Amino acid sequence: MDFDTTMHGAEQLDANDRIAKYRDRFLIDDPDLIYLDGNSLGRLPKSTSALLQETIQDAWGKRLIRSWNEGWIGLPETLGGKIAKLVGAQPDEIIVSGATSINLFKLAAAALRSRPGKKRVVSDEFNFPSDLYILQGLIDFLGNKHTLHLIPSRDGIHISDSDIANLIDDDTALVTLSHVAFKSAFMYDMAQVSRQAHDAGALVLWDLSHAAGAVPVDLNGSGADLAVGCTYKYLNGGPGAPAFLYVRKDLQAELLQPMWGWLGADNPFDFDLNYTPATNISRFKVGTPPILSMTAVQTGVDILLEAGMDKLREKSLAQTEYMIALFNDWLAPLGFSLGSPRTAFERGSHISLRHPEAFRITRALIESPPPAVRVIPDFRAPDNIRFGITPLYTSYMDIYRAMDRLRDITSHKLYETFSAERQKVT
Amino acid sequence: MDFDTTMHGAEQLDANDRIAKYRDRFLIDDPDLIYLDGNSLGRLPKSTSALLQETIQDAWGKRLIRSWNEGWIGLPETLGGKIAKLVGAQPDEIIVSGATSINLFKLAAAALRSRPGKKRVVSDEFNFPSDLYILQGLIDFLGNKHTLHLIPSRDGIHISDSDIANLIDDDTALVTLSHVAFKSAFMYDMAQVSRQAHDAGALVLWDLSHAAGAVPVDLNGSGADLAVGCTYKYLNGGPGAPAFLYVRKDLQAELLQPMWGWLGADNPFDFDLNYTPATNISRFKVGTPPILSMTAVQTGVDILLEAGMDKLREKSLAQTEYMIALFNDWLAPLGFSLGSPRTAFERGSHISLRHPEAFRITRALIESPPPAVRVIPDFRAPDNIRFGITPLYTSYMDIYRAMDRLRDITSHKLYETFSAERQKVT
Repeated sequence: MDFDTTMHGAEQLDANDRIAKYRDRFLIDDPDLIYLDGNSLGRLPKSTSALLQETIQDAWGKRLIRSWNEGWIGLPETLGGKIAKLVGAQPDEIIVSGATSINLFKLAAAALRSRPGKKRVVSDEFNFPSDLYILQGLIDFLGNKHTLHLIPSRDGIHISDSDIANLIDDDTALVTLSHVAFKSAFMYDMAQVSRQAHDAGALVLWDLSHAAGAVPVDLNGSGADLAVGCTYKYLNGGPGAPAFLYVRKDLQAELLQPMWGWLGADNPFDFDLNYTPATNISRFKVGTPPILSMTAVQTGVDILLEAGMDKLREKSLAQTEYMIALFNDWLAPLGFSLGSPRTAFERGSHISLRHPEAFRITRALIESPPPAVRVIPDFRAPDNIRFGITPLYTSYMDIYRAMDRLRDITSHKLYETFSAERQKVT
Repeated sequence: MDFDTTMHGAEQLDANDRIAKYRDRFLIDDPDLIYLDGNSLGRLPKSTSALLQETIQDAWGKRLIRSWNEGWIGLPETLGGKIAKLVGAQPDEIIVSGATSINLFKLAAAALRSRPGKKRVVSDEFNFPSDLYILQGLIDFLGNKHTLHLIPSRDGIHISDSDIANLIDDDTALVTLSHVAFKSAFMYDMAQVSRQAHDAGALVLWDLSHAAGAVPVDLNGSGADLAVGCTYKYLNGGPGAPAFLYVRKDLQAELLQPMWGWLGADNPFDFDLNYTPATNISRFKVGTPPILSMTAVQTGVDILLEAGMDKLREKSLAQTEYMIALFNDWLAPLGFSLGSPRTAFERGSHISLRHPEAFRITRALIESPPPAVRVIPDFRAPDNIRFGITPLYTSYMDIYRAMDRLRDITSHKLYETFSAERQKVT
């Protein structure tokens, strides 16, 4: 695509944006704060406040314990059914439950249990460290009989087909990868990896945290066995909102996870002293879900479903292309390199730009006082600045202003007034 | 204690209640709804609504991702420090994290790992089925090398010292019990059980779900090793609010739990590919905490700390004594029996009354339409009606009216219009 890289060009792109109206569904209080971190914490949908207020005042405050039977107890399944529509699954294949790490522990443990003869776990060096930690802990807990193998990346951006094939063999019990890599935004071909895993007799488990609500996902169509994902990024479910998990229908009665929680029992309210697992997706539930945080998940998912993943993907690709065009013109000459795939079908919905001074530049983007425009991306070691594109509320003018500011900070070395000492960046 | 069992007597007791003023801190919208289920879901503190609204609109909506560094990231420890004051622990010995079942899984797994030669896990038949399920799942996951032994109760109300001693032996790795039994309200002598466990070389792990905020708990003073507990009962943290866990200071660097979550890593923001656990209580954290639900925990705990556990226990004991007095006079002649200890120091903060028609009577209490006073206790199979006493907001008049209504329903068999078919009762 060719882009008009003037401010007028950005205005025209926004004027032609068919889903621009969804921006107004979100709280945007400061016009001079450009938020490109929806891949870390999505913005607040305006209707979430009222829904939570009602849940707190009426459902908790007035209906009290009765609210469990008036909707709360089924929320994991109800919300799971909505998310299923976003990621190509059946409504009874997904629940909202726990945190992504906990869900990964449960599903990976169940997968290893189902493949007792196989000792290899395959992931990649692009995966969330948090996911690798969970796999390491699980392997340790099972007595270090399994080994974890990480598919390397040759260029720091992509994973090649042959490198995947090299690591998956007949001893492989589980292949578990992030569909979209959190740093480079590289996106796997799910169907192809599933075939490779299945040919070796392994199960495949996807982490959709950077994919759900960001790119089209077809769990059923790609033959995925298992998946986990978070709801606080592109799903706009709120800080630390409960995660989701997917288990393909025909695997649900077969796979047994180790945390035998009462809400995963066949009939939790019988209070039987011995656990009998439910035979459906509910067997992957554990304890009582955090209702306030869980309720907030609903509005964001509803807005995504209303807008439609096809239109969202179309805009996301146009916006990442546009950002790459501005990078080419303005930033490559200033020492930036592109840390994300140039090929559209290999790319998620964020762009990483790399620069030796990435950390201080990120600080300057975020912390420069008004009247400077403030831009919030995030920093990922050692030298990546991630810019999340959230087509529901990111405008072309946001991208224009952010890249313009980035050019300004770098060309005038405005970052030099900021310390390189690391602080917590989430 | 002798009580005046007339309505005037209840009025006098309320007039003399030194902590009656705390009732006004909670939303109580319907004067004819008597809520005696605070041991299942605590009432809404009035100030929680405003705190949540601020968290949603300002911290999430406006500060966005920056709020993680402006307080959210430390919430598990901050709230844990407050709860520590309620249960006799040091501030750096408790975090708020996950659900009770998940915390139990983590700590029980860590305990078994630390005692590799010992194969016996001791609990009791009074424990939450949910806790027993978690232990069963853990044992299964570890290859069924351990066995679970349940201390029996001879009378359905108490557990005797000799029966405890009979089951704890040198092969015992872990003793895990509910400090206050959810059905009968029997309360263990923590210090004595700790001694018995330690003499055998076992660790002791308490479930404080029915104890924290309900009775004085002295984790440090009793020599407790580990504990878990929920925040949505007597702590009034809201539906499914995140649970807490306690690990005694000197055990923190030694015990390793199997869910190696990124927030339990020594430096989560280094994104190192290999997990190095934190050496303090933070190593027991797993994934990103649900901030909205977690924030709501604060106000309830603050109110308890302000009122003081000594005064709360004094009122709780007076109120359970009062309820027993009404039971003696009014209900024992109608076929009820007392399902809770008569001895004060063996009793938590609720009373179970048993009756062959308990289920239908519970429905009549809850579901009879106005102008009848509605009473919300809860039913626990096979024949228990549990009445939770929450001294922060339960009045003597609440108890008087509830027992009076119970007498009415039973003596006139008003329950006969309700079906005995079971519905979900949480």
